[in-house]
Amino acid sequence: MCSVVGVYGNENASKLCFYSLFSMQHRGQEAAGISSSYEAKIKTVKNRGLVTQIFSEDDFKVLKGDMAIGHTRYSTAGDDSILDAQPVFARYGLGEISIVHNGNLVNAKEIREELTKKGAIFQTNMDTENIIHLIAKNYQKNTLKERIIDAVKQIKGAFSLIILSRHKMFAIRDPFGFRPLSLGKIKSGGYIVASETCAFELVGAEFIRDIKPGEMITFEDGEIKSEMIFEPAPKQCIFEYIYFARPDSNVFGKNVYVVRKQMGRELAKELPVDADMVVPVPDSGVAAALGYAEESGIPFEMGIMRNHYVGRTFIEPTQEVRDLKVKMKLSPIVDKIKGKRLVVIDDSIVRGTTSKRIVRMLKEAGAKEVHMRIASPATTGPCYYGVDTPTKEELIASKMSVEEIAKYIEADSLAYLSIDGIIRAIKDKKENYCFACFDGNYPIL
Amino acid sequence: MCSVVGVYGNENASKLCFYSLFSMQHRGQEAAGISSSYEAKIKTVKNRGLVTQIFSEDDFKVLKGDMAIGHTRYSTAGDDSILDAQPVFARYGLGEISIVHNGNLVNAKEIREELTKKGAIFQTNMDTENIIHLIAKNYQKNTLKERIIDAVKQIKGAFSLIILSRHKMFAIRDPFGFRPLSLGKIKSGGYIVASETCAFELVGAEFIRDIKPGEMITFEDGEIKSEMIFEPAPKQCIFEYIYFARPDSNVFGKNVYVVRKQMGRELAKELPVDADMVVPVPDSGVAAALGYAEESGIPFEMGIMRNHYVGRTFIEPTQEVRDLKVKMKLSPIVDKIKGKRLVVIDDSIVRGTTSKRIVRMLKEAGAKEVHMRIASPATTGPCYYGVDTPTKEELIASKMSVEEIAKYIEADSLAYLSIDGIIRAIKDKKENYCFACFDGNYPIL
Amino acid sequence: MCSVVGVYGNENASKLCFYSLFSMQHRGQEAAGISSSYEAKIKTVKNRGLVTQIFSEDDFKVLKGDMAIGHTRYSTAGDDSILDAQPVFARYGLGEISIVHNGNLVNAKEIREELTKKGAIFQTNMDTENIIHLIAKNYQKNTLKERIIDAVKQIKGAFSLIILSRHKMFAIRDPFGFRPLSLGKIKSGGYIVASETCAFELVGAEFIRDIKPGEMITFEDGEIKSEMIFEPAPKQCIFEYIYFARPDSNVFGKNVYVVRKQMGRELAKELPVDADMVVPVPDSGVAAALGYAEESGIPFEMGIMRNHYVGRTFIEPTQEVRDLKVKMKLSPIVDKIKGKRLVVIDDSIVRGTTSKRIVRMLKEAGAKEVHMRIASPATTGPCYYGVDTPTKEELIASKMSVEEIAKYIEADSLAYLSIDGIIRAIKDKKENYCFACFDGNYPIL
Amino acid sequence: MCSVVGVYGNENASKLCFYSLFSMQHRGQEAAGISSSYEAKIKTVKNRGLVTQIFSEDDFKVLKGDMAIGHTRYSTAGDDSILDAQPVFARYGLGEISIVHNGNLVNAKEIREELTKKGAIFQTNMDTENIIHLIAKNYQKNTLKERIIDAVKQIKGAFSLIILSRHKMFAIRDPFGFRPLSLGKIKSGGYIVASETCAFELVGAEFIRDIKPGEMITFEDGEIKSEMIFEPAPKQCIFEYIYFARPDSNVFGKNVYVVRKQMGRELAKELPVDADMVVPVPDSGVAAALGYAEESGIPFEMGIMRNHYVGRTFIEPTQEVRDLKVKMKLSPIVDKIKGKRLVVIDDSIVRGTTSKRIVRMLKEAGAKEVHMRIASPATTGPCYYGVDTPTKEELIASKMSVEEIAKYIEADSLAYLSIDGIIRAIKDKKENYCFACFDGNYPIL
Ligand SMILES: Nc1ncnc2c1ncn2[C@@H]1O[C@H](COP(=O)(O)OP(=O)(O)O)[C@@H](O)[C@H]1O
Ligand SMILES: Nc1ncnc2c1ncn2[C@@H]1O[C@H](COP(=O)(O)OP(=O)(O)O)[C@@H](O)[C@H]1O
Ligand SMILES: Nc1ncnc2c1ncn2[C@@H]1O[C@H](COP(=O)(O)OP(=O)(O)O)[C@@H](O)[C@H]1O
Ligand SMILES: Nc1ncnc2c1ncn2[C@@H]1O[C@H](COP(=O)(O)OP(=O)(O)O)[C@@H](O)[C@H]1O
Ligand code: SF4
Ligand code: SF4
Ligand code: SF4
Ligand code: SF4
Ligand SMILES: [Mg+2]
Ligand SMILES: [Mg+2]
Ligand SMILES: [Mg+2]
Ligand SMILES: [Mg+2]
Repeated sequence: MCSVVGVYGNENASKLCFYSLFSMQHRGQEAAGISSSYEAKIKTVKNRGLVTQIFSEDDFKVLKGDMAIGHTRYSTAGDDSILDAQPVFARYGLGEISIVHNGNLVNAKEIREELTKKGAIFQTNMDTENIIHLIAKNYQKNTLKERIIDAVKQIKGAFSLIILSRHKMFAIRDPFGFRPLSLGKIKSGGYIVASETCAFELVGAEFIRDIKPGEMITFEDGEIKSEMIFEPAPKQCIFEYIYFARPDSNVFGKNVYVVRKQMGRELAKELPVDADMVVPVPDSGVAAALGYAEESGIPFEMGIMRNHYVGRTFIEPTQEVRDLKVKMKLSPIVDKIKGKRLVVIDDSIVRGTTSKRIVRMLKEAGAKEVHMRIASPATTGPCYYGVDTPTKEELIASKMSVEEIAKYIEADSLAYLSIDGIIRAIKDKKENYCFACFDGNYPIL
Repeated sequence: MCSVVGVYGNENASKLCFYSLFSMQHRGQEAAGISSSYEAKIKTVKNRGLVTQIFSEDDFKVLKGDMAIGHTRYSTAGDDSILDAQPVFARYGLGEISIVHNGNLVNAKEIREELTKKGAIFQTNMDTENIIHLIAKNYQKNTLKERIIDAVKQIKGAFSLIILSRHKMFAIRDPFGFRPLSLGKIKSGGYIVASETCAFELVGAEFIRDIKPGEMITFEDGEIKSEMIFEPAPKQCIFEYIYFARPDSNVFGKNVYVVRKQMGRELAKELPVDADMVVPVPDSGVAAALGYAEESGIPFEMGIMRNHYVGRTFIEPTQEVRDLKVKMKLSPIVDKIKGKRLVVIDDSIVRGTTSKRIVRMLKEAGAKEVHMRIASPATTGPCYYGVDTPTKEELIASKMSVEEIAKYIEADSLAYLSIDGIIRAIKDKKENYCFACFDGNYPIL
Repeated sequence: MCSVVGVYGNENASKLCFYSLFSMQHRGQEAAGISSSYEAKIKTVKNRGLVTQIFSEDDFKVLKGDMAIGHTRYSTAGDDSILDAQPVFARYGLGEISIVHNGNLVNAKEIREELTKKGAIFQTNMDTENIIHLIAKNYQKNTLKERIIDAVKQIKGAFSLIILSRHKMFAIRDPFGFRPLSLGKIKSGGYIVASETCAFELVGAEFIRDIKPGEMITFEDGEIKSEMIFEPAPKQCIFEYIYFARPDSNVFGKNVYVVRKQMGRELAKELPVDADMVVPVPDSGVAAALGYAEESGIPFEMGIMRNHYVGRTFIEPTQEVRDLKVKMKLSPIVDKIKGKRLVVIDDSIVRGTTSKRIVRMLKEAGAKEVHMRIASPATTGPCYYGVDTPTKEELIASKMSVEEIAKYIEADSLAYLSIDGIIRAIKDKKENYCFACFDGNYPIL
Repeated sequence: MCSVVGVYGNENASKLCFYSLFSMQHRGQEAAGISSSYEAKIKTVKNRGLVTQIFSEDDFKVLKGDMAIGHTRYSTAGDDSILDAQPVFARYGLGEISIVHNGNLVNAKEIREELTKKGAIFQTNMDTENIIHLIAKNYQKNTLKERIIDAVKQIKGAFSLIILSRHKMFAIRDPFGFRPLSLGKIKSGGYIVASETCAFELVGAEFIRDIKPGEMITFEDGEIKSEMIFEPAPKQCIFEYIYFARPDSNVFGKNVYVVRKQMGRELAKELPVDADMVVPVPDSGVAAALGYAEESGIPFEMGIMRNHYVGRTFIEPTQEVRDLKVKMKLSPIVDKIKGKRLVVIDDSIVRGTTSKRIVRMLKEAGAKEVHMRIASPATTGPCYYGVDTPTKEELIASKMSVEEIAKYIEADSLAYLSIDGIIRAIKDKKENYCFACFDGNYPIL
């Protein structure tokens, strides 16, 4: 996962990008960067680390201008990625360009092969570089806009893109609309495009509307112009609701917190359990747990605490400290839990190891029973659209039945919300969403 | 506020201190340190910063031995404190000694004056240095234990102390027991003493009991020995329950989360309000808000989100971004809040500026009414016992009536929990607790 | 200026590159990097800073394999160079490639324009990227070697290049041989190619011979193969002797120290002066000053000391401290200088400001007369072949006569060595060398 | 070795201390610090590292006032010294005080024992702390000056001290005058006291005179007052001339460079050798080598180059690179040396390992003969007066004869300058100097 932002027509464009990236830090903690355009030159500052670590006040003296784009990057597996960070900047036939991308292309390899066969070079592993190449090599076309349209028609997969040229900005969402992308109006002037609307709150912007699947918006001469460049075929990522997006964001037209809470209600309806207390795994399980508690009538308790100082330590654990990593992040409120039958709510289970450790921790804290209720279906396949899930083999639900997983994680019972339950929660048509990592129906491969 | 820890009789003593300090990081983020004793020599590593930033694996090669003490330090106002950090180590007449201290002495100035008059020198501003001096200058007494007892009889105020010598460790709590201090048994061997029991969870220790007000525990020859060195006169800090201690800790014999939730219930009983939703200011208001919601029957919602990446930025805000600081930490779930009458629960109000910003943020997010309910009485005086509250002049409640504060923070109504309400919540005798910053009855001055 | 190194056929290839770069640090302090090839994959570590700051032991776990190339980069003016560092790595039609380059292309702009017109993109400002593009786009040719030869035939200017592919290494010197490039045999196995022979000393290698102007050496299957790919037209940079190269290096077939000393002798013959003492501006003037002293019979003294801790400070000078920057680097031995008539020897004068400050410092220290003798002709033009000289306007000798410069720098007399003097010192044909920044005869434009 | 500086009566006092410390960095690279006095309060900034790394412009906003003292600290063996740095600051009976010290006390242990017996505590290993204690505990005396005089009468050994109180500054040199200390007048106002006069050059000060052995200078009410507080018994450290002091400093009334050169002349007279070339081990051997060459008529050559980038690397050497450490610092000019008979001049030999490596390096570079000539006598004993020499056992000359050392270091011949030779060079009475590490006559123990 990553986040993108673009600000157009505000004299503090790069600083507003900075604040936006800060508020979307949860979508990527590995690296971040900002490009801005000023007097027909594009400048870029990017590095590894958190947004607040990368930028200093001096950088904003470089990042002048009233147009800027930014990116936060999720750590991905590939080991040669050491130097990769976005925006990716290039000089090409029409001048200078800088691009940020949230998503993942499924035909990246084919494009690279074809391009390299014809003499292109690739200095990074990023899809963004592919896109710049497609724009650049299309020298028959005279305008950047035509080239961009041609280029995005050749790429397949998930892409929420923002492109900065010397005088314009473009925002594009793929026809499936896998990743969110919203448009806002900044109170102090100009427009903002961002992956999540939580960015709008911080910079003082008003939500206008989502960029539509297949839409391209052009920011030019102080105006915005919309056109549909693809036939829309919405397959919006359901995992944005389940886990990624911040609860205070509205994505795909709905508030994430509200949807999560409703998922919790559906979970309670589908999978009731006789218990004393509903306990979320914080923070991802909180909203669903509140819904579960309201629907079931079982009291809600913050029976597990999430440490404020979650972060890396390089100190090796001693033998004696079992399950250290999970305990440094989560701690049980022993007095509340002791002797109780708990319904524990989390958003999803990936490998099962964290769940196992949580159950063990709760049992050690004296819980009589631990019933895991997951506010999403069993994750059985990887994502090819920009989410860094493990391989199929590593996904516990691809190899074990629900009963087997329950046993493995040592829970007294385990149950997952159905796809139908999710549909009911979001009150929308199933066909508008991608559920591929749950049901294997990959919209594009 | 600060935290202290001591580990005795475990070969990983310093590492267990490290993990304990990590779990007590909320009690002090300014500086931290660890001393350990090995082959009759005491080594110390200390620095400014977070626990995870200060210590590297190499430090633990230096911090050998089966006895160690540690400290995290809260940032205090005094500007010459740049170099201050604990433990404070010294060589003195009987060898080597290292001390950590949580609390504040009220007669520190007198002691310093008397000692300096007689030729002592002070290299820091820390009370700990006073205590070492008192121990050291008492050369008539031949054993460290006698000297410690004589020393602590001369100091007045709040002190939870842990003292490490070459072969022993001592833990002492002042007769008022202002600050918590608990004793545990480590599963992998030995004992632990710590400010908060949350440290026990992480290192795999079992709670034995609180060190009593006025008690000294001596760790020697693998054994522990208790003696009462003061007549106990308990005046335990009520603010530990209200704000400081971690919800998963048990202090003064009760679980913090449970107490806070009960305070929320009492708040609902004392100060009901007609509203649509109970919303905590996270995280300090969560437990009380749950209690308030349960008691009042008004639905609980996590209507404000606390950012995971709270932290310092050195980027100056642009004009346009109003109330930036509070917005970087807290964000409203607009969809939930819009058009609603909210009861907003927080633990306390100090200067009133944060509350004002929160109310404004909620109103901007569309809240119809905002009723602030505070789970503690109005803070009218400073603390002299180790809590870094502002001066009386800066405390809004020392200058304004409740109505005036309500107006200042732009809330539709404001009300504080009474001292009696707190007493009911903790189900204990009022006289055992200090309420001085609320009622002005300072136990010792 | 920059430096390049390549090691082939030694299991510690990347570490030997590291030591080589350390010994060539004087050729570039801005950035450095190393690529190595292992199991058909190329890895790169590069960053800004000094060689010893950039690399940690962990990096060499990544930089495995028995072939590696490295680079140190000089800080250049262009402000978008923030992210530029070499080697430049790319994936292209034939696999993976990494390149380091010392020199400067005079047709870089034309190449870029042509390439971008045809769709290429440029992510950096470095010539290296041009070269990779030329190699990559030549997809008609099937072997890398053919492509390299085609590519270097299109570039014009100064280039000492080392190219690493997955299984081979190539070293090429332009037909003019502007920059040095030498070949050595490593005692512990394999070959080394480096800008300066001082690298050989540190890694335990024996000098074999210089790579010839126009020559390409291919390292393949454990062997080396030489071929002339250009008609040689030697125009070796005379400034390497005058200033850049380390005194212990042999470049263009001669030892730098020996040549510099001989230049000092010629200076004494051409431009004698009646004085008490010959004093070098350390370190660049030392060798010439020794020659001057020997030839003239005037005693040599280290009358100016060069501070060991030359380095950046961010502390602003106070008003009172005049000429602080030069004084932090150089200090006069007042007792030696007082009342004396000095011949002060430096390698060259660029803007004249440093010389002015040195003269002033010596006069303040009591020197009776200061006669500047420069061991090179007056620098009147910029370099287009890889040396970062200022623009013509900034060069003092482009605007002033020798007398005017003498007056400006407040010297009692000033004189420059003639081009003939240099020729006599190097005992070689003038036509084999570039003197363009002195005489305006640019070999290629 | 360490350096001290004090500035009195200049509004940029702390900044002038900073520049002074920069110019005395060669006397200590481990740690540094500055204290200044402003409005009756003393502030201190100190840390580990080089002067330019420690201080930022912000520090000088804290270090206000027109009086300041500073210190650079040499790394010493003792492993608990991690936190030790000077100035040492303390509050005591008369207010605030801060002290810097260059030298070493021989009765430190006794003082500590006596003081601790009476109740004092020691937080560091530094002599400075002893001195503050002696001042502080003397509460019978009412003025700081009296107390200082009493205190320094109790300490024995080497001390060049500068003491800062809230309104005064004191500079004291022990009766032996082991370490240098000079007084200067700052052109922009006020006075400076510093270990070496090179500090005066940088800050724009004029040398007035050396502080005399046994003298105390008081800076008070804008004036300076001198008094002799000890009977002078000069035993000035001859090693300051031989090695420590910077060539451009004047210490003990003479210029270091001039003295060193003269030592080289004496060396040539005493220990002639038939050779082709005189080569210094740079930089410490340069001045003596020049003298040797002039006296002997053998040509001087900078046959060994000292790397500008001497510094730490954490990269482990590979097996193949022999004598890496010395080679990273020094490199031979092979072309000059090959086939030649060399007289190699260095200032001293400590353990012999570096000399051995240098000889080996020169032989590998083709030197026909290597004759080592050392511009000081054989070092046979440790220093107890502030110089960090190794123990007697580690000093090669304490265990081997000159012939044996010659053989060990693989030199064709080896000879040391006699004490008489040194006396002739400095043209002063032998009894005024300490030669203890050469002749065992320790002035005080
Ligand atoms: N890991 C944690 N999880 C929940 N609450 C915590 C945690 N650590 C400390 N606390 C509690 O959080 C409160 C402080 O957090 P918060 O209210 O978010 O910040 P602030 O100190 O700015 O009010 C305190 O009441 C403390 O007891
Ligand atoms: N500031 C925030 N407050 C609450 N939830 C957040 C915040 N930022 C991100 N989230 C949500 O928190 C969840 C991730 O946090 P958490 O569950 O604590 O960690 P983990 O990623 O390890 O599961 C996601 O569901 C995300 O939507
Ligand atoms: N800036 C300087 N220039 C020349 N000599 C210096 C300088 N600073 C210190 N010195 C002298 O250099 C010598 C130390 O340098 P050097 O011999 O290179 O290193 P080492 O300490 O390893 O012998 C000392 O004699 C000292 O007096
Ligand atoms: N280690 C070294 N010892 C002596 N000279 C060196 C060394 N490294 C580089 N040089 C030479 O030093 C000169 C640069 O040093 P110097 O004159 O002190 O600095 P600047 O570059 O400011 O003139 C160059 O002529 C270079 O050849
Ligand atoms: S596969 Fe899963 S994570 Fe990926 S886009 Fe579809 S629903 Fe989202
Ligand atoms: S004054 Fe307040 S904060 Fe201080 S100890 Fe008493 S109750 Fe606690
Ligand atoms: S122009 Fe000058 S610096 Fe450049 S290559 Fe020619 S001689 Fe060398
Ligand atoms: S013993 Fe040696 S180093 Fe020490 S003061 Fe005497 S002469 Fe100097
Ligand atoms: Mg989670
Ligand atoms: Mg709070
Ligand atoms: Mg120079
Ligand atoms: Mg030396």
